[in-house]
Amino acid sequence: MPYVKRAKQAKNPAARSLFELMARKQTNLCVAADLTVAENVLALADTIGPDIVLLKTHVDIIEDFTPDFTEQLTKLAEKHNFMIFEDRKFADIGNTVRLQYSKGIYKIGEWADFVNVHIVPGSGVIKGIEQGMEETEFEFPRGIIILSQMSSKGNMATGDYMATAVGLAHVYKKSVAGHIGNGSNAEELKKLTSVTEAGHIVFTPGIQLGSHGDTLEQQYATPQSAIYAGSDCIIVGRGIYEAESAEKEAKKYRQAAWGAYVQRVKGK
Amino acid sequence: MPYVKRAKQAKNPAARSLFELMARKQTNLCVAADLTVAENVLALADTIGPDIVLLKTHVDIIEDFTPDFTEQLTKLAEKHNFMIFEDRKFADIGNTVRLQYSKGIYKIGEWADFVNVHIVPGSGVIKGIEQGMEETEFEFPRGIIILSQMSSKGNMATGDYMATAVGLAHVYKKSVAGHIGNGSNAEELKKLTSVTEAGHIVFTPGIQLGSHGDTLEQQYATPQSAIYAGSDCIIVGRGIYEAESAEKEAKKYRQAAWGAYVQRVKGK
Repeated sequence: MPYVKRAKQAKNPAARSLFELMARKQTNLCVAADLTVAENVLALADTIGPDIVLLKTHVDIIEDFTPDFTEQLTKLAEKHNFMIFEDRKFADIGNTVRLQYSKGIYKIGEWADFVNVHIVPGSGVIKGIEQGMEETEFEFPRGIIILSQMSSKGNMATGDYMATAVGLAHVYKKSVAGHIGNGSNAEELKKLTSVTEAGHIVFTPGIQLGSHGDTLEQQYATPQSAIYAGSDCIIVGRGIYEAESAEKEAKKYRQAAWGAYVQRVKGK
Repeated sequence: MPYVKRAKQAKNPAARSLFELMARKQTNLCVAADLTVAENVLALADTIGPDIVLLKTHVDIIEDFTPDFTEQLTKLAEKHNFMIFEDRKFADIGNTVRLQYSKGIYKIGEWADFVNVHIVPGSGVIKGIEQGMEETEFEFPRGIIILSQMSSKGNMATGDYMATAVGLAHVYKKSVAGHIGNGSNAEELKKLTSVTEAGHIVFTPGIQLGSHGDTLEQQYATPQSAIYAGSDCIIVGRGIYEAESAEKEAKKYRQAAWGAYVQRVKGK
């Protein structure tokens, strides 16, 4: 089913916006800006902005963070028309994630369209973010992405764990935008995408055009293998920001992932 | 086995320090300072400092955080002789947690004696923190606490998950100081404490003298039930900082938990 049709199935407004944006902008590429200097993140976002639908941030690794950073980032998101996903991996009890989402100096709830959660703590983690969303004054569509799978070696988000995640996504469909799926293993990923609702987006990190691992047990797959296995949006980090030309590399990934999506929708 | 003897079994230097400190200071009380204003956290730490062995922080919920806060906090830890545990619940792939631990504006690795991790990502999360520890210039004993159980409703840290956590603690015994155990369910907690190595410390949150829950699915138990089930260090939050007199309340919890420990060691 094409993104435009799935947008209509989405119960979460941020998921709907992202589906529509992917279709309109003809890109299903998310770039992970895992850089530790604010200026570098902003420069990367400005360079690759035209080619992405989503920018994934780790605001807590930026050494010179100030509230001005998120202000600038939000402006770039408007300029190039992409959404922002803070990869915070909330994983605490409800009352704590509520505070982590809405308070502190990052005030994630005021600028991130999407955040993700681990479901280890149970459904309280989702309810806590929902409450945090209600408590932040900013009114824009926001969504929760559930880490239903991971791609690192020996990860525990498998079997029943994944099934529980899909169940929670169904129950909290108003706030849940989609899932993080295993980008490194197409067979595992298919287990998730085969049970994902049409209104939910499956994001897959761990993607590189040349596939290999790092020394800290992260594993990689290609854009095509992920999209053919049912991923909707690929997340690429080092493959792009460590490239000599991030712009050229982003275009390559965009083309690969969008091409694979077009083929998939055609039923190839 | 008393804390002094277990200190000798500890392979992680921070665990050894904490065991010794508990024995010397005659308190096994950790207070969770889940407050959102720096001054209030510091005031609480100064008030209850003499009664605790450990202060648990959520640095990312503090609205007016500056590096001065952690400097002040470290001074209070020296003044009152307690250690600091940043309850960050690291839960990402190795390379990311390495950056989250050592970089960013919080620079957790420079002031926290303990941090905790979720093992959902696999062993990479421990290796990433170990690498972050090597990369921070500060030289003091530091330890990793594994979230081997949780106490919130519907949490997934049960069964095989807990067994895997205990296995990882065994493999990474030089960096792992201990476990977070389920404070709300003595039977579940016993499953963990019965397989915990003598050199590892079991910490239990979710403790209140009068036991009840909150509206976000957190559940509570008493100091005695936790200690009798094998917990070594109880973590108390709202029960103390929301009390009319945090000082008096801390003394009550200290007495209850330490008394239970003395009874347990006597083999009562």
